[in-house]
Amino acid sequence: MKSRKKDITSETNLKVSHNIRVRFNETDALGIVWHGYYLNYFEDGREAFGRIHGIGYLESKAKGYVSPIVKSSCEHKLPLRYGDLVTVETTYINTPAAKIIFRYKILNTEGKTVCTGETVQVFVDDNNNLSLTIPLFFKAWKTKNNLL
Amino acid sequence: MKSRKKDITSETNLKVSHNIRVRFNETDALGIVWHGYYLNYFEDGREAFGRIHGIGYLESKAKGYVSPIVKSSCEHKLPLRYGDLVTVETTYINTPAAKIIFRYKILNTEGKTVCTGETVQVFVDDNNNLSLTIPLFFKAWKTKNNLL
Amino acid sequence: MKSRKKDITSETNLKVSHNIRVRFNETDALGIVWHGYYLNYFEDGREAFGRIHGIGYLESKAKGYVSPIVKSSCEHKLPLRYGDLVTVETTYINTPAAKIIFRYKILNTEGKTVCTGETVQVFVDDNNNLSLTIPLFFKAWKTKNNLL
Amino acid sequence: MKSRKKDITSETNLKVSHNIRVRFNETDALGIVWHGYYLNYFEDGREAFGRIHGIGYLESKAKGYVSPIVKSSCEHKLPLRYGDLVTVETTYINTPAAKIIFRYKILNTEGKTVCTGETVQVFVDDNNNLSLTIPLFFKAWKTKNNLL
Repeated sequence: MKSRKKDITSETNLKVSHNIRVRFNETDALGIVWHGYYLNYFEDGREAFGRIHGIGYLESKAKGYVSPIVKSSCEHKLPLRYGDLVTVETTYINTPAAKIIFRYKILNTEGKTVCTGETVQVFVDDNNNLSLTIPLFFKAWKTKNNLL
Repeated sequence: MKSRKKDITSETNLKVSHNIRVRFNETDALGIVWHGYYLNYFEDGREAFGRIHGIGYLESKAKGYVSPIVKSSCEHKLPLRYGDLVTVETTYINTPAAKIIFRYKILNTEGKTVCTGETVQVFVDDNNNLSLTIPLFFKAWKTKNNLL
Repeated sequence: MKSRKKDITSETNLKVSHNIRVRFNETDALGIVWHGYYLNYFEDGREAFGRIHGIGYLESKAKGYVSPIVKSSCEHKLPLRYGDLVTVETTYINTPAAKIIFRYKILNTEGKTVCTGETVQVFVDDNNNLSLTIPLFFKAWKTKNNLL
Repeated sequence: MKSRKKDITSETNLKVSHNIRVRFNETDALGIVWHGYYLNYFEDGREAFGRIHGIGYLESKAKGYVSPIVKSSCEHKLPLRYGDLVTVETTYINTPAAKIIFRYKILNTEGKTVCTGETVQVFVDDNNNLSLTIPLFFKAWKTKNNLL
């Protein structure tokens, strides 16, 4: 069944680590980073991935596509405080669907997992239409990375 | 099995609707609300719920507990633009676990679902310890609302 | 001297009051609203002014102009905390220059001044050019309000 | 006259340069960085200064003081877009008053000035009282840097 097959995802070894220093303005009255800012950290990780693997916002845009996020989730294990240094590990998750899936793991300096999360993006073309098939430029990228 | 029982959740009829106007600074270069701001909208809805049902941040704090978010998710169906008026419906989801679960539905003025989401909070006491049982003040609140 | 004359500004009686409830995510680790969020409050006030006086972002946009902020300032007198209710008073400051100037005063529920501030906007047309003269639609608005 | 003397400020050669990459979520529907985020960039610059010169939030806190911002201003010359790389130059401005003043200049990769700004901080002790004199730890820091 096609729809089942499209739901099959597999973790790849395309992973990028990105370092972040927690900003004062990201903390809240509890003295810890407000939970919503982890989506900013995920974005930092995703953009770092895009720069390194040539598949960022500007590359997509140049090919006539944007990739809005349609789903995101975050699970928190440990709090973060002002000045903390963390590493965001962003891993590309392969899927036969016309989607971009990333998983994130944020680690503190002791190597402990602070949080994990996932985002799902779709492709929308210049006419504001959702692409039901994988755009050519992304297929080419997948081919180059042995993901097809 | 206790752990299974604790995972049983049920939607209640405790639901609060809260209206929001999309701010200019919540839009991004795609001209739509940046996905991370939906967690702000969820917080607006959750706080409105807390004010109406007497179970907000300040009430918890007064009883010696804070309730950090340990899990959040958001699924997007339609984009939002500057000036859009939306309604955040926040529904309390009952659970026998020492957690607070809310589900959110954001609707546009046509009544269409813009996004849905969920947050899970735990109880942390003044000594920064995770509460494995439901604090008394929250038990009292549940009793009052026939949720025990 | 023309340049001197253009610097003459005068407070008008066009003033709009807008109520805001401080959000939890606007507080920082000091337990007070992070200073940068006052620019969000000013924007809330400015947009409320625009809606009431028909001179907001969308009206300008429809006439082929956007009005980016080129200058902002904020002076803090008292801190704000989570849950505080405040009123943003936004006053239109008249100037013969091709600019929009607003002054802001944020008051707490006791009527005490929390902060004051000012923003200056210019007109940029559809071709991304700075307008050195007041656009016709804005001249018409000023005429209607006896500001010319 | 004491009050006049206290208003005398002088630029020092204590300057720290800090590089920033503009995040996607900092842009608005005009496709440029929303003006409020420049206060975040100033904070990034100020914190980089604090780390290098040993006078940051955590050092103050350890000595029993916090330094809330009581005044800020920003003047914009050029817009910034997603992905732009900028340098924030943060310069310590000396004053005999019990204040910390920083001036900021943000430069793009061509070395052009994107914006300039200033923040003023005061000292508040553990009992939440405004310090009318310079705290000892800050006097020591000034002495070390020949600023007294």
